[in-house]
Amino acid sequence: MTGKRIVVVGADAAGGSAAAQAKRADPRLEVVVLERQRWSSYSACGIPYWIAGDVADVDSLIARTPEQHRANGLDLRMETTVTAVDPAARTVTASGPAGDFSLQYDELVLGTGALPVRPAALDADNVLGVQTIDDGLRVLDEIALASEASMRPDTGRGDGGPLRAVVVGGGYVGIEMAEAMKRRGFAVTLVDAAPEPMSSLDPDMGQLVREAMVAMGIDVRAGTAVDGLQVDDDGRASAVLVGGQPLPCDLVVLGLGVRPNTELAVRAGLPIGVTGGIVTDRRQRVADRIWAAGDCVETRDLVSGLPTYLPLGTHANKQGRVVGVNLGGGYLTFPGAVGTAASKVCSLEVARTGLREADAERAGFEAVAAVIRSSTAVGYMPESSPMTVKMLAERGTGRILGVQIVGSGPGSAKRIDAAALAITAGMTASELVSADLSYAPPFSPVWDPVQVAARRVERLV
Amino acid sequence: MTGKRIVVVGADAAGGSAAAQAKRADPRLEVVVLERQRWSSYSACGIPYWIAGDVADVDSLIARTPEQHRANGLDLRMETTVTAVDPAARTVTASGPAGDFSLQYDELVLGTGALPVRPAALDADNVLGVQTIDDGLRVLDEIALASEASMRPDTGRGDGGPLRAVVVGGGYVGIEMAEAMKRRGFAVTLVDAAPEPMSSLDPDMGQLVREAMVAMGIDVRAGTAVDGLQVDDDGRASAVLVGGQPLPCDLVVLGLGVRPNTELAVRAGLPIGVTGGIVTDRRQRVADRIWAAGDCVETRDLVSGLPTYLPLGTHANKQGRVVGVNLGGGYLTFPGAVGTAASKVCSLEVARTGLREADAERAGFEAVAAVIRSSTAVGYMPESSPMTVKMLAERGTGRILGVQIVGSGPGSAKRIDAAALAITAGMTASELVSADLSYAPPFSPVWDPVQVAARRVERLV
Repeated sequence: MTGKRIVVVGADAAGGSAAAQAKRADPRLEVVVLERQRWSSYSACGIPYWIAGDVADVDSLIARTPEQHRANGLDLRMETTVTAVDPAARTVTASGPAGDFSLQYDELVLGTGALPVRPAALDADNVLGVQTIDDGLRVLDEIALASEASMRPDTGRGDGGPLRAVVVGGGYVGIEMAEAMKRRGFAVTLVDAAPEPMSSLDPDMGQLVREAMVAMGIDVRAGTAVDGLQVDDDGRASAVLVGGQPLPCDLVVLGLGVRPNTELAVRAGLPIGVTGGIVTDRRQRVADRIWAAGDCVETRDLVSGLPTYLPLGTHANKQGRVVGVNLGGGYLTFPGAVGTAASKVCSLEVARTGLREADAERAGFEAVAAVIRSSTAVGYMPESSPMTVKMLAERGTGRILGVQIVGSGPGSAKRIDAAALAITAGMTASELVSADLSYAPPFSPVWDPVQVAARRVERLV
Repeated sequence: MTGKRIVVVGADAAGGSAAAQAKRADPRLEVVVLERQRWSSYSACGIPYWIAGDVADVDSLIARTPEQHRANGLDLRMETTVTAVDPAARTVTASGPAGDFSLQYDELVLGTGALPVRPAALDADNVLGVQTIDDGLRVLDEIALASEASMRPDTGRGDGGPLRAVVVGGGYVGIEMAEAMKRRGFAVTLVDAAPEPMSSLDPDMGQLVREAMVAMGIDVRAGTAVDGLQVDDDGRASAVLVGGQPLPCDLVVLGLGVRPNTELAVRAGLPIGVTGGIVTDRRQRVADRIWAAGDCVETRDLVSGLPTYLPLGTHANKQGRVVGVNLGGGYLTFPGAVGTAASKVCSLEVARTGLREADAERAGFEAVAAVIRSSTAVGYMPESSPMTVKMLAERGTGRILGVQIVGSGPGSAKRIDAAALAITAGMTASELVSADLSYAPPFSPVWDPVQVAARRVERLV
């Protein structure tokens, strides 16, 4: 493929990795990267921590600046939106700072990412997403604006109470944002339609998250739908309507998750899967000379065997690398994922991998489940803190199907990786019980909590 | 086996687990446990932390008291030493507080543990091991005694300097004890014959441990043999002789490791393996009606396929449970181990699994190795701290053979578990690169450090 032109749509995790990897593998490739934003290769997952004040400044979130990409030989064009792809003619049409243009490609990479779910009923100037760095900057601006307004006597906010944020959606970003706003001094209400927040966990584990949120002073309204907004003449929401009642607010943060950004792909006639993501093969190829990676694609769930949509930076990086290796003349595949995720929310460490009870049921597994309480370290060590582990195994075979962890101290969440590898390797609960996991008083009880869960579940198989 | 009498020699991790598990599985079993010490089921691994002052009191180290064992239906006889086993007659002879006696058994379990390596040249009243709780109490007594003596004008220690401890042996217990003594205010010298301390790691990784020890103010004499002691008339060592030079000391701590306590087994004609441990089958059976578990047995290294000796509480507990399940009429095996271990020493978290370079060579593997520096969390998070990972893989196949971690902050060591499971499952470095490990800014960079090491080593395969 030497000397060929590769056009990459998107310079974030997937597109940036694909472009950098391809250029590294074969420096003679011409790699053009078109990015609609003014930021490249940044950590979207870090935005809630930046807003909470844990991360010093926005520059810290940038993994690679446009200049760094260019120094690596990429022809990166920022603030350039691709408006159409023509697979037959092998062209993309785009609109950038210098006007519209079209480009011929030999190979095309779609790294168009995801779009936040934003119902039309929730549109107002102070209703904010947290998907992009610009979103994050807007949240910080709005915080400053609201803080300033609350100090002026003419705003009708002379009640002396704290500023009020309503977070809509109780996924991990919603909860991280609820915590961030709380730490910024807001009175925070989180409204979520699911019976418990953090619905990437089973409800019995999500309940532990809700309890920690309540303990932190967040008003959690679970199992509650949002009907709409009460919008003032200035275009700002003054209240969120919940069950017909207005919930007064100075700021609304959306945490309703994301959906794959597939508009270009759909218009180009590329295959879209049941999850809404672009369908790729194991090498992340979509069609002849077209590849895709990251939050715009669907992937394979290695436990259920079903298609799944997993918009996470870790997959975007891996899939982008797979595309880049293949474009550079190598051979690499992305086999799929087991659905591992972790989050630090409201004093808790939360992690999950594999199937939840409902996923197992949907996939046709009969699962048995066990929940155990253990601790991160031996009880007599000062760093010991409690953690709860839930494990699902297939009835009969004992194959581990899923693991969920909610821990109240450091060292809880990362234990999910051992579970993820056990699931990847197709291990049974009994095999995990026998496994040689590390033990030392500051790090683990003699039986690691994940093994304690495996011991409990193997009895039910 | 109902109604049969099981005699268990040793009430610590292995014997205690075997006895408790057997009785739980079949309450009609008569389970007699003979323990030579006055402590049962305690955490030997916790002793250095207790001496350092992290653990409140000795009672915290006791997992199960004699009373608790008895409440579970065990006939536990403390301070009772078994002096002989007669497999033909199926008897044990023992000596306890009420005199000598002999006992008929239907099934015998040997959980005789390990003995500290203690060269004859290093015998004096103030030369102490840290193997048992009584050892720990002696160390604390000696610390008190030395502190008191140093305040008396008649002891010749009127130099006003700190008390001096010499630790002989740089394994993890030696290093933990060096740190504990340092934190107790001693001037500490650690003398080790190996080229670098922590020889359970390759020397290039052990060097990082030495540097942290030196930074903590410990005088590390690596590659140095101990010739003997300078012993005063009162039977106390006043100096350790190193290279002909006296190293003045108030206290000497031995950290030379342990060897299997097999005296009873040897005299009973039971099989002893190349490592010096008792040989068992996969169910931990030694001979007809005789079982063994814990620090007195050798086990199988799952990577090299060779016999290995791994005196660790985690294996003792697992093997004891295997014996108990089998005695209770069930079926359970201990497949072997991959040599996973972790330790917190001198501000570092250290962990290892699988083979070192020398082990791989000895087993006949041609290994390639990569060392990478990464961080526990994304660089912009306040909890991010550096960690070094070394990975060995088999040339040609890419099969992971071993992983070593030295990290300077929380979250480093426990990552070894993912590596241990990858090795257990026979994964290649490339398969580990593809694996779905957890990512979130407070817990991990997008590429987990273990995967960064796998990426590096896969290129060398």
